[in-house]
Amino acid sequence: MRAGQVIGDWGNTRLRLWRLENGAVADRREGRGVAQTDHPSAALAAALGNWQADRIVLCGMAGARNGLHETPYVACPADAESWRSRLTTFERGGASVAIAPGLASWDGRADVMRGEETQIFGAIANHPHLASGTHHTVLPGTHSKWAVLANGRIESFRTFMTGELFDLLQRSSLFAADGEAAEADEDGGFSDGLSRHGPLSALLFEARSGQLLHGRSAGWARGFVSGVLIGAELATMKPHGSVTIIGEPDLAARYVRALSDRGIDCTILDAEQCTIAGLRLLDADA
Amino acid sequence: MRAGQVIGDWGNTRLRLWRLENGAVADRREGRGVAQTDHPSAALAAALGNWQADRIVLCGMAGARNGLHETPYVACPADAESWRSRLTTFERGGASVAIAPGLASWDGRADVMRGEETQIFGAIANHPHLASGTHHTVLPGTHSKWAVLANGRIESFRTFMTGELFDLLQRSSLFAADGEAAEADEDGGFSDGLSRHGPLSALLFEARSGQLLHGRSAGWARGFVSGVLIGAELATMKPHGSVTIIGEPDLAARYVRALSDRGIDCTILDAEQCTIAGLRLLDADA
Repeated sequence: MRAGQVIGDWGNTRLRLWRLENGAVADRREGRGVAQTDHPSAALAAALGNWQADRIVLCGMAGARNGLHETPYVACPADAESWRSRLTTFERGGASVAIAPGLASWDGRADVMRGEETQIFGAIANHPHLASGTHHTVLPGTHSKWAVLANGRIESFRTFMTGELFDLLQRSSLFAADGEAAEADEDGGFSDGLSRHGPLSALLFEARSGQLLHGRSAGWARGFVSGVLIGAELATMKPHGSVTIIGEPDLAARYVRALSDRGIDCTILDAEQCTIAGLRLLDADA
Repeated sequence: MRAGQVIGDWGNTRLRLWRLENGAVADRREGRGVAQTDHPSAALAAALGNWQADRIVLCGMAGARNGLHETPYVACPADAESWRSRLTTFERGGASVAIAPGLASWDGRADVMRGEETQIFGAIANHPHLASGTHHTVLPGTHSKWAVLANGRIESFRTFMTGELFDLLQRSSLFAADGEAAEADEDGGFSDGLSRHGPLSALLFEARSGQLLHGRSAGWARGFVSGVLIGAELATMKPHGSVTIIGEPDLAARYVRALSDRGIDCTILDAEQCTIAGLRLLDADA
């Protein structure tokens, strides 16, 4: 086993690094996201601090144009082997640095991911039942990614700007400044939003009209907007049977509510554990 | 004819006032929008300046909760008479102030307008062919409003957050900072966006993927987003025959392109002329 192994997930908003000792995670550090620095090399060195690393494996925006070193997109369908085979490796400051490729979907529409594929391949490695048959997976977040797995391959995927739109809409005209919301109100709004159908640009405005005409609270409106956005994902992806959710518990809980409403079983996997498992796949025979 | 008549449209972002002499517009002034002041009375006085007014008629957000004086919403279907009958009149600083009600649509979903109804009733007053038969009307803008007219009534309407979403998305991850766009590129993006179908939250992300996978410019992406948003309006409203566009020429031109693509004839009416005509309806027998 090598001394000084570090694996990391470098997103737009944060860098997470894990130091491995004898193959197990011994320590954890965070640093700046790719979008928060013009000097990725310096940001990585700052986050590594006094860790001595002779091998660093990174996924996510580390491979973006504005990251540490641009890596290709592997076309779907893609399995862990074809993904690993496009690992980009180079020397930097005495260490061997390897950066994961992203995945692309080209079937009629363009779509990309960087980082989520590592979580998905990690999920498959940790949960062997995902390696056979067909499975629907969702990774909720800023850019919510839905992937269809077939016999351990990522067959196709689709990105929804759910989290980013929700954040942008906080600065919109939708939420009247009428003080704090009761949780229950937000929950009710979420259910109302889930059941609505139509174009988002029109449905979203109902959050405002509901406040003006029906005396709804800003909390209800926030829940409604969240329900409308997640409802649009389900209406498009039409998952059935069961769905594997890879994500933070609070956000995953919203998807569980939405999916349970439709009689769909959910399994929630810890995102960080999946990331680490995926990065270790890349490190395996380096 | 009264001396000192002033009519005005008070929106969220600006106040426009017109002074009438012998029933004709003699002068024009602007002031702060309702959303830009906590003291609407003072803002109105400042905009009026040295104009002596004994009668002031206002539409728009002047009648909103945070405006000069809250006015009701009139339920659709509504004609100019039922709308006028809900005019709210009061004395303020020696002048008679009248504020137009808004319109509401309650049919299964909540929707509201404040100000656009004045433009639509003004359009009908100025263009008598709109007073009979069925007509589709669109008022593009921050909140794009589509109204169906039937025999001079506003039968129903629907709001799309097109302009506001477009503005919010300028601060999003969608537009890579790759310098200025060629016009032609933006036009191409607009056409590409118009032809796309699906949920906005997924389609919008294609603006980013198109840049990453197909080397599209940020200008193309802006055009694509505009096309997707306007395309969602047309896909929902399904106008046929001809459409009356009440709006600024640059924005109206985008709708003309989108509608002409579908073989729909367009008439563009000047928004300010329609507003003035609508406000004069309210002033007529005061």
